[in-house]
Amino acid sequence: MKKILHVLFCLLILAGAITTSAQNRIVVFQSDFGLKDGAVSAMKGVSMSVSPDLKLFDLTHEIPAYNIWEAAYRLEQTVMYWPAGTVFVSVVDPGVGTSRKSVVLKTNSGHFIVTPDNGTLTLIAGSLGIAEVREIDEAVNRRKGSEKSYTFHGRDVYAYTAARLAAGVIRFEEVGQELPKQVVRIPYQAAALEGNTIKGTIAILDVQYGNIWTNIPAELFKQLGLAYGDKINVSIYHNKTKVYQGTMPYAATFGAVPEGKPLAYFNSLLQLSFALNMGDFSGTYKVYSGSDWRVEVRK
Amino acid sequence: MKKILHVLFCLLILAGAITTSAQNRIVVFQSDFGLKDGAVSAMKGVSMSVSPDLKLFDLTHEIPAYNIWEAAYRLEQTVMYWPAGTVFVSVVDPGVGTSRKSVVLKTNSGHFIVTPDNGTLTLIAGSLGIAEVREIDEAVNRRKGSEKSYTFHGRDVYAYTAARLAAGVIRFEEVGQELPKQVVRIPYQAAALEGNTIKGTIAILDVQYGNIWTNIPAELFKQLGLAYGDKINVSIYHNKTKVYQGTMPYAATFGAVPEGKPLAYFNSLLQLSFALNMGDFSGTYKVYSGSDWRVEVRK
Amino acid sequence: MKKILHVLFCLLILAGAITTSAQNRIVVFQSDFGLKDGAVSAMKGVSMSVSPDLKLFDLTHEIPAYNIWEAAYRLEQTVMYWPAGTVFVSVVDPGVGTSRKSVVLKTNSGHFIVTPDNGTLTLIAGSLGIAEVREIDEAVNRRKGSEKSYTFHGRDVYAYTAARLAAGVIRFEEVGQELPKQVVRIPYQAAALEGNTIKGTIAILDVQYGNIWTNIPAELFKQLGLAYGDKINVSIYHNKTKVYQGTMPYAATFGAVPEGKPLAYFNSLLQLSFALNMGDFSGTYKVYSGSDWRVEVRK
Repeated sequence: MKKILHVLFCLLILAGAITTSAQNRIVVFQSDFGLKDGAVSAMKGVSMSVSPDLKLFDLTHEIPAYNIWEAAYRLEQTVMYWPAGTVFVSVVDPGVGTSRKSVVLKTNSGHFIVTPDNGTLTLIAGSLGIAEVREIDEAVNRRKGSEKSYTFHGRDVYAYTAARLAAGVIRFEEVGQELPKQVVRIPYQAAALEGNTIKGTIAILDVQYGNIWTNIPAELFKQLGLAYGDKINVSIYHNKTKVYQGTMPYAATFGAVPEGKPLAYFNSLLQLSFALNMGDFSGTYKVYSGSDWRVEVRK
Repeated sequence: MKKILHVLFCLLILAGAITTSAQNRIVVFQSDFGLKDGAVSAMKGVSMSVSPDLKLFDLTHEIPAYNIWEAAYRLEQTVMYWPAGTVFVSVVDPGVGTSRKSVVLKTNSGHFIVTPDNGTLTLIAGSLGIAEVREIDEAVNRRKGSEKSYTFHGRDVYAYTAARLAAGVIRFEEVGQELPKQVVRIPYQAAALEGNTIKGTIAILDVQYGNIWTNIPAELFKQLGLAYGDKINVSIYHNKTKVYQGTMPYAATFGAVPEGKPLAYFNSLLQLSFALNMGDFSGTYKVYSGSDWRVEVRK
Repeated sequence: MKKILHVLFCLLILAGAITTSAQNRIVVFQSDFGLKDGAVSAMKGVSMSVSPDLKLFDLTHEIPAYNIWEAAYRLEQTVMYWPAGTVFVSVVDPGVGTSRKSVVLKTNSGHFIVTPDNGTLTLIAGSLGIAEVREIDEAVNRRKGSEKSYTFHGRDVYAYTAARLAAGVIRFEEVGQELPKQVVRIPYQAAALEGNTIKGTIAILDVQYGNIWTNIPAELFKQLGLAYGDKINVSIYHNKTKVYQGTMPYAATFGAVPEGKPLAYFNSLLQLSFALNMGDFSGTYKVYSGSDWRVEVRK
């Protein structure tokens, strides 16, 4: 009798344990594939074939084709809001078929990113820190039957490996051999105060609205000692060419300036940004983003 | 022995209860953020951090920027098809930083909508009815660590509150203080029969096909006493300006008229609509939608 | 005592069985609805109302309006990567209101496809094989309360039936009467070797990049006896009109040719494809896809 009860208890505990571990089986996908064809769906189908208990989400699939900088930025913008243990897949891979490595980064925050190591990890490795980098051993971590296909790493290697890692089919150590704690990094102007000028990069556009997001954090900007309503002078360069120069107030809300007028504000990542109230700064002034777009701000 | 069995039974019942309540943990997101950046994904990450048992879906994130009317219409078009208890998040918020209130509407049908109260609830409050409105107490219902960020309410207040409500972390009463049973409403021409003319609003475009959807319900239209194949006269106004006038048959199917020809029909919401068979009515005649687009229909 | 234990055991086994069957409750949606309105969300809401245990995914909703060929192709590209038992819903339905039948195809691989039988099944029926075709009995398999609405089959019949099938509310036999093992097929040039020329169809564009994907499989192409780097001559016709003629190397990777230059390669489905390295073949040469776009390849 007691033995039977013991078995029952164990079953209950086991059921509980399964439920608990399943609650972290999250995979988040990013790519430059768009949503018009079946590529993203095929990655998810492969994932569900690995384990139907996975929970699959998207970061974005609208990264401009081959734009590694933007892939890096979207990860940087988003990863921190997901629970530790979440596995990200990022496939922006202009170098498919070349010698770039396929890796999984474990950050110090406990997030995993499965990606070609081509600069995609530039920003996230800096902000969340590198706990471990492993190279995917494709001899083992490759969808069965995919040996003949050499072009869709996103589905056959990255999604497959991410799903197996997230579902606990493999441990992180089984991804492949450990690499040195470094990743390929794209060079760019880090945010810095030089004299009375703050320099930085236009990290990204807030594309839906045409706002300009720099990589200049609030703490650095505050060293200029400005209050809401104070004017600043902004210069924007594409490589060596000056594309925009103007003055605008530092404002708490868009509504602080008339419609169509420029303002400087902090976005939800607390980075210095420029906008036209109810307008499109980027389209109006032909200002875009990436490591080749620099900004200078002074009083 | 009996005591042990009792405990076992209780555990089983508890497990059942948890499973049952978890099955309603649905959150549906709508915004004007688009899918090109990480904003939607960040809202979902925050939600999964609240509870990994939530089931997250999208209504649309392609609401034209700042278009509150269209946000209102999409809710009206969709909410009723989801189970009672579903929590919707709608973030179209041109007035961020102004005095608009952040609220949760509970409809008489048992759906919840988390949104800025800026007109977004105009239509759904009318059709599903107001059971209760509560103002979100941001002192309590705000993502931990987000106090420094004042611009991304979608993630830090709306998604966070919706997730906690859907997951049962807070009860509806804990959202914040109850408000009067009313919401901000956008003025528009209600569907009405005046003499032999039916007046209404172009509620929305069926954007994928360029069809024109009015707010005129089938029951009202039937008072004109028309049969399939009968001709109607249609005038369309943008504010005071007549943009289109023409006659077309009232048809049961698109195939009832030749390709490229106009017809009037009832859409899936049983509202009077206009289309060109295999064509684009909106693009052809430059007819769009919103509270400033009126229509008049007569025999 | 034993009786009570027996009941407990049965409860545990039952709970296990429910969990197990729920793990295959996958529905994947495809349509030409786009993601700008509430149509896709309404289909998912109806599905969750049938059973909150379903797992809902998307193939794509960006099929060009009324493009049945592309709907057929996306299914062909994707279905095989999902687990057997997955239920697909494909709604590209220019003939809504006409006599086309609403069917569910069960493939020999154990996948289900719920769709109007209008050519959408052309390719998948050929590749995965027809196990059974049943016509949806709309008297039974139609959302309650939808009788008044005659235009949104996607939501009221297809999504509703797919959800009930996937959730086990109905068995496949309860979909409706069995039809002959055939489906409506769109005519097109099958891949074939004639003399020293391989003929085929431009099956689809890899739209994100502008690459050209034919229906010519690797095994057939290999009969030309080419090695990487060998040149081939490619002619492309729209109906009877020659739109492109040129030579290009058969290459293992995009990087094997200079930027902007054409190459022939095998895509992830192992079908012959044409691209400009880092460029847009389709846009550059105005070459598109479908059953009316033919290709001829020779040494």
